Amino acid sequence: MAFENLLKKIKGKAKLVDEYMLTNLAGDIKELYDACKHLIKAGGKRLRPFLVLTTYNLFCDDIEKVLPVAAAVELFHTFTLIHDDIMDQDEFRRGVPTVHTVWGVPMAILAGDLLHAKAYELVAKSNLPSEIIKRIIEEFTETAVIICEGQALDMAFEKRKDVSIEEYFEMIKKKTAWLFRTCCRFGAMSASAEEKYINILGEYGEKMGIAFQMVDDWLGLFGSEEKTGKPVGSDVREGKKTYPILYALEKANEEDRKKLLDILMKEQKTEREIQEAIEIIKKTGADIATKELAMKYAEEAISVIRELPDSEAKADLITLAKFVIERSF
Amino acid sequence: MAFENLLKKIKGKAKLVDEYMLTNLAGDIKELYDACKHLIKAGGKRLRPFLVLTTYNLFCDDIEKVLPVAAAVELFHTFTLIHDDIMDQDEFRRGVPTVHTVWGVPMAILAGDLLHAKAYELVAKSNLPSEIIKRIIEEFTETAVIICEGQALDMAFEKRKDVSIEEYFEMIKKKTAWLFRTCCRFGAMSASAEEKYINILGEYGEKMGIAFQMVDDWLGLFGSEEKTGKPVGSDVREGKKTYPILYALEKANEEDRKKLLDILMKEQKTEREIQEAIEIIKKTGADIATKELAMKYAEEAISVIRELPDSEAKADLITLAKFVIERSF
Repeated sequence: MAFENLLKKIKGKAKLVDEYMLTNLAGDIKELYDACKHLIKAGGKRLRPFLVLTTYNLFCDDIEKVLPVAAAVELFHTFTLIHDDIMDQDEFRRGVPTVHTVWGVPMAILAGDLLHAKAYELVAKSNLPSEIIKRIIEEFTETAVIICEGQALDMAFEKRKDVSIEEYFEMIKKKTAWLFRTCCRFGAMSASAEEKYINILGEYGEKMGIAFQMVDDWLGLFGSEEKTGKPVGSDVREGKKTYPILYALEKANEEDRKKLLDILMKEQKTEREIQEAIEIIKKTGADIATKELAMKYAEEAISVIRELPDSEAKADLITLAKFVIERSF
Repeated sequence: MAFENLLKKIKGKAKLVDEYMLTNLAGDIKELYDACKHLIKAGGKRLRPFLVLTTYNLFCDDIEKVLPVAAAVELFHTFTLIHDDIMDQDEFRRGVPTVHTVWGVPMAILAGDLLHAKAYELVAKSNLPSEIIKRIIEEFTETAVIICEGQALDMAFEKRKDVSIEEYFEMIKKKTAWLFRTCCRFGAMSASAEEKYINILGEYGEKMGIAFQMVDDWLGLFGSEEKTGKPVGSDVREGKKTYPILYALEKANEEDRKKLLDILMKEQKTEREIQEAIEIIKKTGADIATKELAMKYAEEAISVIRELPDSEAKADLITLAKFVIERSF
């Protein structure tokens, strides 16, 4: 396994982050805190905290100092997952029922809100210099606003038939890639790295984030439910305008295109219709095209950090960009 | 009108805060930002920013410096209103349909999330010293967590028959009074006031917040819909355990108590049952008892700040505590 070593490192760092997160999610009101911890305990790759820690490691070793920030981005990410699952009415995530499915919508809204606040709290309470905390909070909250905008676009696209590839990239940049960018910037900022490096790493993160989301789109149609923990085809069910779907709408013949669009825009879809849609998409070569373009973004991400001095952390960032493409979960 | 002068000052400060808020709520995605601005434009008393500005004015004059913090607490408050309205399935607030009623639950969740992030963003971007920003963010996010806990208790109480007065006070301290406390502390902190004064003003805010919530409970049962902008009796409909309701459950005769509890715990309630419940509550003297106890808290709030040097701002805080009791909206 080419990524065995990387995955071991990710897991090692994840253990530290998980411990830190769970210690900071203790409170008297059991139901509320159980709801907060549900998706965290269900697993997840912890790529975002890994990015914070590894970009920090490019410049400094004492990982303890930046652990609150790494935990914060994962709490933040968990908050967005909980709220997104309500909005998208998704019932499974990471192989377990979603928070609102178990505790109901009101408690899920509340759990997300708590995690959202807690994320910034961890940063504010960290031992980083106040100047850096101020800057991280500024970019963190800006990122939150951008992600909300991205989610609003994603939802709006469900109802539209004429979403362009350009609009798709605007949406995933906001909804997904921006947080990857932010994570990489936070690691460098926390290490008091030069402005130049903060920007380079942000660019790496953004390109990697785009690649990540495109592969996510791919996995949502052609992946294995057992490995992703999410029902295959839910993007079709929700009428999402993902890259392979948009590609197929552009490349399919008139008949297939009409059929695909009809299925996508239907209020209720049968299991058979979803399968039919996936077959039309595949027929256009969208699966290969998606992976190829994702790979191009991953390569660009790698190329952006070429000028950084060689180090173990740099090598990990390069391997990570490759893993993001090859992953099956 | 005893409060005419105070209300004029509140309105004057509100104008500055509203301008600041609306300027900072501009973005390309019209639907999302419209949803964010909906309740802000619908009105509201702006008591929380008034508290920030007035406690700041106890020590400093240059209000511009603390305006971002004042706007932040109101954005934050608006976020909690939007999400609470979803959780409580409330249809009207400030005389207009609630955000989820107009834009649907997904957009309302998102608008709340955006405002939540924006609140901290305004603080982080302010010109206050980094040390103070760090401290404000710390207490602000702690407050958010406490408010989530308070809302979780409020919801849990709906399903319970045996909520005690003690539990009620724990709940409203978290859900309502803590933010008033925080606002008063923020004003003093932003002015670099002595620790002693930060604490005194926090105590004033907390006691005032308790008084405020008790009067809110009162208005929810005995107020005028036209003035409050909320349907009278919705607390009964939702089975909320407000002070007058708990008081009535304690003081009513066995028959009335049983009747009241039956109505409160019913899934669906008719308009007649709600009226009947309100009459039972009134018969126990709960309306007078609620106002009297609220007044005691307001008096305590006033007494706590007695040792502050006399000033216009101090006089305003004293008048405000009295207004909170006498208000009809």
